Amino acid sequence: MEPEYRQKRAADESQIEGRNALREAFRAGQSVERLYVQDNLTDGPVLDLIRRAKKSDTVVDYVPKERLDRMSLTGHHQGVIAHVSSYEYVDVEEILKKAEEKGEAPFLFLLDEIEDPHNLGAIIRTANLCGAHGVIIPKRRSAGLTAAVASASAGAVSYTPVARVNNLVQTIGDLKKKGLWFVCADMDGEILYDLNLTGPIGVVIGSEGSGVGRLVKETCDMVAAIPMKGEIDSLNASVAAGVLAYEIVRQRSYDSRPV
Amino acid sequence: MEPEYRQKRAADESQIEGRNALREAFRAGQSVERLYVQDNLTDGPVLDLIRRAKKSDTVVDYVPKERLDRMSLTGHHQGVIAHVSSYEYVDVEEILKKAEEKGEAPFLFLLDEIEDPHNLGAIIRTANLCGAHGVIIPKRRSAGLTAAVASASAGAVSYTPVARVNNLVQTIGDLKKKGLWFVCADMDGEILYDLNLTGPIGVVIGSEGSGVGRLVKETCDMVAAIPMKGEIDSLNASVAAGVLAYEIVRQRSYDSRPV
Repeated sequence: MEPEYRQKRAADESQIEGRNALREAFRAGQSVERLYVQDNLTDGPVLDLIRRAKKSDTVVDYVPKERLDRMSLTGHHQGVIAHVSSYEYVDVEEILKKAEEKGEAPFLFLLDEIEDPHNLGAIIRTANLCGAHGVIIPKRRSAGLTAAVASASAGAVSYTPVARVNNLVQTIGDLKKKGLWFVCADMDGEILYDLNLTGPIGVVIGSEGSGVGRLVKETCDMVAAIPMKGEIDSLNASVAAGVLAYEIVRQRSYDSRPV
Repeated sequence: MEPEYRQKRAADESQIEGRNALREAFRAGQSVERLYVQDNLTDGPVLDLIRRAKKSDTVVDYVPKERLDRMSLTGHHQGVIAHVSSYEYVDVEEILKKAEEKGEAPFLFLLDEIEDPHNLGAIIRTANLCGAHGVIIPKRRSAGLTAAVASASAGAVSYTPVARVNNLVQTIGDLKKKGLWFVCADMDGEILYDLNLTGPIGVVIGSEGSGVGRLVKETCDMVAAIPMKGEIDSLNASVAAGVLAYEIVRQRSYDSRPV
């Protein structure tokens, strides 16, 4: 059976360098994650690439020539390097549609600045197995759907849709209007076992370094704390996501207690 | 406060090459994880190193010269390369003593051939935070306490004791006689939420590739399945360990239902 949400593989290359190659990539409609442009370059062809990038909602970063020199694999970057996605992103709407088609209350993951590809992949893998309908990541300060992430996801990127948004806080606000509740993982919160995590829900996981951002946290309806007894600070982000996700699974499907 | 179980840091080097350096390492009592010896080398100094290795329970692997050449960082391995531990191991007894001192029922992790340092580190990190008293790994086919594992553990190797044993099945048998129950994670099992996971317990986690070994699984009292709804095969090993560990935490401390 052909899986419903198998994503299209976009390209084998994860890095494209040089003006012509990049113009072709934009023309062909390739999903460009991020465009790195050498500081102070303002000639026509470069401005054209920047215009195409903005049109297709690609993040543009201005960086010193030395950084491009270090990033370059070909030695001929001509002031522009781009990272392209290995997998296609979906719209948030498609994730909700997937839940609707299954007749299930929406169950989403929102990842606030998870930059480690290993963690992003492991979380998409968990999302697939715990029955979540999709994953939402921000465009900035997040790993994208690169080959490394696909590999760490054990193939889950081919089944579990991933959407990229400009602003997580705004996306949470929009989804709240559609009836979703949001819970973020943070040690300041209530013990997760004491929360009612049934119903349409979005789980927000922050980065290991700085946790969930302040604004994102304030926008959430609930803050869930995983009990921690040890000497160190925090769980690995993908482990924390797994513990929270499976408490939701337990409450949804295996807990007959009134809550 | 000085933490109870801060492990001694043994050495900065994780690889030692050459006959003299290795003889000195054994003489100094350094914890040598594994000794790689070039096939067919039988001269006196090499036999002496092998004898010292066996005496200190170090695993000895015979490998072709080409493999040593590839492994070598110095270019002068003289037919012998060893990996040393960054951290010291403890005895299983010390882990049980730690539980006793805290007045808690023992809660251990046993890892069956977890070879990925990232996963081993993340599991030790989880063990620390969920209040487990220690981690037991086999000497063969397991990552050891290298610098990479210490880093992935976010420092937990300094607090959570790790023991290495020759034979997991035998260790499980010995611990059963002391009243511990063993649960392994495997998709053939009962749903974990339906199991009674309170009391003195050892959690057995297998490798991602092949799961828990047959003999180990047969020796366990319970087989716990994490419900999986998705298209792919299995959770990341450290995520599975986290989900199972926190179900134990929930049942031990947050569940007032009679079980």
